[in-house]
Amino acid sequence: MSIEKTRPSEIERESLSIIRRELCEMGIDVPREREAVILRVIHATADFEYAENLVFSEDAVRRGIEALLTGAAVVTDTNMAKAGVSKVGLRKLGGEVFCYMAEPAVAERAKEEGTTRAVASVRYAAEMNPGAIFAVGNAPTALLELEAQMERGFRSALVIGVPVGFVNVVEAKERILMCCERFGVPAIVARGRKGGSSVAAAIANALIYSAADMLEPEKRGWN
Amino acid sequence: MSIEKTRPSEIERESLSIIRRELCEMGIDVPREREAVILRVIHATADFEYAENLVFSEDAVRRGIEALLTGAAVVTDTNMAKAGVSKVGLRKLGGEVFCYMAEPAVAERAKEEGTTRAVASVRYAAEMNPGAIFAVGNAPTALLELEAQMERGFRSALVIGVPVGFVNVVEAKERILMCCERFGVPAIVARGRKGGSSVAAAIANALIYSAADMLEPEKRGWN
Repeated sequence: MSIEKTRPSEIERESLSIIRRELCEMGIDVPREREAVILRVIHATADFEYAENLVFSEDAVRRGIEALLTGAAVVTDTNMAKAGVSKVGLRKLGGEVFCYMAEPAVAERAKEEGTTRAVASVRYAAEMNPGAIFAVGNAPTALLELEAQMERGFRSALVIGVPVGFVNVVEAKERILMCCERFGVPAIVARGRKGGSSVAAAIANALIYSAADMLEPEKRGWN
Repeated sequence: MSIEKTRPSEIERESLSIIRRELCEMGIDVPREREAVILRVIHATADFEYAENLVFSEDAVRRGIEALLTGAAVVTDTNMAKAGVSKVGLRKLGGEVFCYMAEPAVAERAKEEGTTRAVASVRYAAEMNPGAIFAVGNAPTALLELEAQMERGFRSALVIGVPVGFVNVVEAKERILMCCERFGVPAIVARGRKGGSSVAAAIANALIYSAADMLEPEKRGWN
């Protein structure tokens, strides 16, 4: 075989250095604080547009990491994003990942309140895990419901707003950015149509690995 | 709120018509047989490059659907892709989705055979589910191992080869295309670096929904 088999950790390191080099060749300057997030999203998608699409509220990365260091949970809007979030990393930090979309209580609530499961699961999560990081990779209506919750006093640790799509998505992302700014909630958002469960998980993982590295600085990889 | 909340099924239909219109405006002609797959991948990524990256062996879609109609399983290389594959759709067809990456038997085998879990899980799957559709969204080494298995007589129902990445990925995809052609195994591959678990799940789902529609033609949506 002409392709050398190398270890997954070596491949990751090499991928990272390729991404860094190509960003440099494109003349894209990535701020140090945001580098781990941007690199991991490009690593998960091979799509360099994210270097420009991803927008961060001030201190979003630092505050996300701080929340994880105090054991904040991660709540996702799909089981797919949940499956992609690093449980090993979260365990080191005392955190957990939840997705409530398949909960019977959420299905019931959606029916009772005449809404979608995506909206009902944000309502449910806001009660169950108010201090969590909310990672939305699929449903723009989940972002709209986070906005409605914030109007009523809810404050999550961080909003990762990266739903993908063609209807309501671009607008919902712009709205959550303004809403988070108004209420002082940190936000990381992929502007435009692009995003998805892989992107949501990649952003959560970048923060999780960065936080875990702070606990075990000798194992630093991505910073 | 200025964004109208519409039902998920309406949003999906509207998204689909937007994608169709924009493909048309770009002058990209999508062959009828492949349309459901290409549209669903663009729907999952908002990335129109897939209209050109996705390559299909002759009859790949028809043969994938036929396999699903006879109850073929889907084997994924990540739990994330597994989470994204429609269980409701597969249940209608009498199929199931499996990912062996977290199986203790696979971890043991990887250790014994001095290889990665990605490779060991393909070996395991080739024994457990030889007639399955293999959907690879992450590990190029899983494609290389599929190739090695085919050299020894293994024939899967279909290979969905869409790992994402910067190291070994482009080459592994070209190799599996040639290998599948040589052994008459149908293949759907995302050429180049792009892909991922979301893309793998989207392709599997396009085939699953197409097959399920054949059982319930009155509910046709994506064709």
